[in-house]
Amino acid sequence: MTVDVCFTPALLHLFDLEGKTVVVVDIFRASSSICYGLDNGAVEIIPVSTVDECLEYAGQGYLLAAERDGQVVDGFDFGNSPFSYTAPKVSGRKIVLTTTNGTHALNLARKAAGIVIGSFLNLTALCNFLLAGGRDVILLCSGWKDQFNLEDTVFAGAVCAGLASTFALAGDPAVASLDLYQVYKNDLNLIIERSSHSQRLKKLGILKDATFCLQTDLCSHVPVLSNGALV
Amino acid sequence: MTVDVCFTPALLHLFDLEGKTVVVVDIFRASSSICYGLDNGAVEIIPVSTVDECLEYAGQGYLLAAERDGQVVDGFDFGNSPFSYTAPKVSGRKIVLTTTNGTHALNLARKAAGIVIGSFLNLTALCNFLLAGGRDVILLCSGWKDQFNLEDTVFAGAVCAGLASTFALAGDPAVASLDLYQVYKNDLNLIIERSSHSQRLKKLGILKDATFCLQTDLCSHVPVLSNGALV
Repeated sequence: MTVDVCFTPALLHLFDLEGKTVVVVDIFRASSSICYGLDNGAVEIIPVSTVDECLEYAGQGYLLAAERDGQVVDGFDFGNSPFSYTAPKVSGRKIVLTTTNGTHALNLARKAAGIVIGSFLNLTALCNFLLAGGRDVILLCSGWKDQFNLEDTVFAGAVCAGLASTFALAGDPAVASLDLYQVYKNDLNLIIERSSHSQRLKKLGILKDATFCLQTDLCSHVPVLSNGALV
Repeated sequence: MTVDVCFTPALLHLFDLEGKTVVVVDIFRASSSICYGLDNGAVEIIPVSTVDECLEYAGQGYLLAAERDGQVVDGFDFGNSPFSYTAPKVSGRKIVLTTTNGTHALNLARKAAGIVIGSFLNLTALCNFLLAGGRDVILLCSGWKDQFNLEDTVFAGAVCAGLASTFALAGDPAVASLDLYQVYKNDLNLIIERSSHSQRLKKLGILKDATFCLQTDLCSHVPVLSNGALV
């Protein structure tokens, strides 16, 4: 079996998704918050591409979450800060979520045999899931507005490392991801110092979100896309 | 001033080229052979996108070079092996060249203020040229059929390192390239072991080309695109 890495949704057309498991990665912050929210008892999280689609769920008991350019969209319950996805806030609730990058990537991956969500928060659970899955894996980094980003790629490398016993690296993106993980693994917070996205979060005063998202194995579940919802 | 890295031509639309110098990189093998050929006395190398365009120059005294999928196209003088660009073969000659990845990238970059060619063979000359140039720099990796590749990216990192005294890294692709260069700089031949493109060249029996292309500073000139030709 092989593990491949797609650095941004803009390159996904180069990958054959058929029969494969796609792991959608958006470390800062969508995929981290989705893992955290479901671990904290959210019933389901429905990813949608646009703010308008999100609004269609208004008045039906859903928590509505919308983020654009790192900020909560005006009039919404919350965005994609992991601190909005604690048990008191989300337990027993259904959530509809749209974000700048992560939900877009999710929707592009729909041709895959399986779609799951990965973050440092559920790294070990994810690797165990993929090792048991028996399918080739594509790690789809959400990036930032179709650009490559560091944090998603380092995470992809962490998964490549976790799968190394059974999976071969499919090509240069996986090799480079693994190399980058080796650079950062002993101090993941270095990513914050160096990455442009962290600088963006810093300007918005939500750097604590980034630090939170670099914690490993806080969650024990792997969100799976099923009938349009992450459960 | 800033230095940015575009991992593949498929992402070039995300970059604003205006007023900037674009360095086209196709380490295995087009950009290496172009540097080597011009250093060895070729008068000019005209990059064209298609084999048909290349054929239009037939019978006019040009050496015609065409490569697709790593092999010389049937009926052509040669492809893009650096060993075809030695002084006895190219000195005083005009060459028309089309390759799988490199010439495509060149043509996409035409909006830039300046377009030059980079390879390990002219690394120091290139860095000096860019340091003296007074313009922001975009390193455009040709990749392999729009996919990211390791050798072009490590080279981009080498240039980022060479420009570090004066240029800031523009974003995560530049940060990652520099990190990858640090991983490979003490043994560039490790790239051959790990990269998928090298495996492709190995199958074609032209691995010695790859080894040749990883030599540093064999050439002292920087090929510049001027009126459609590299001089």
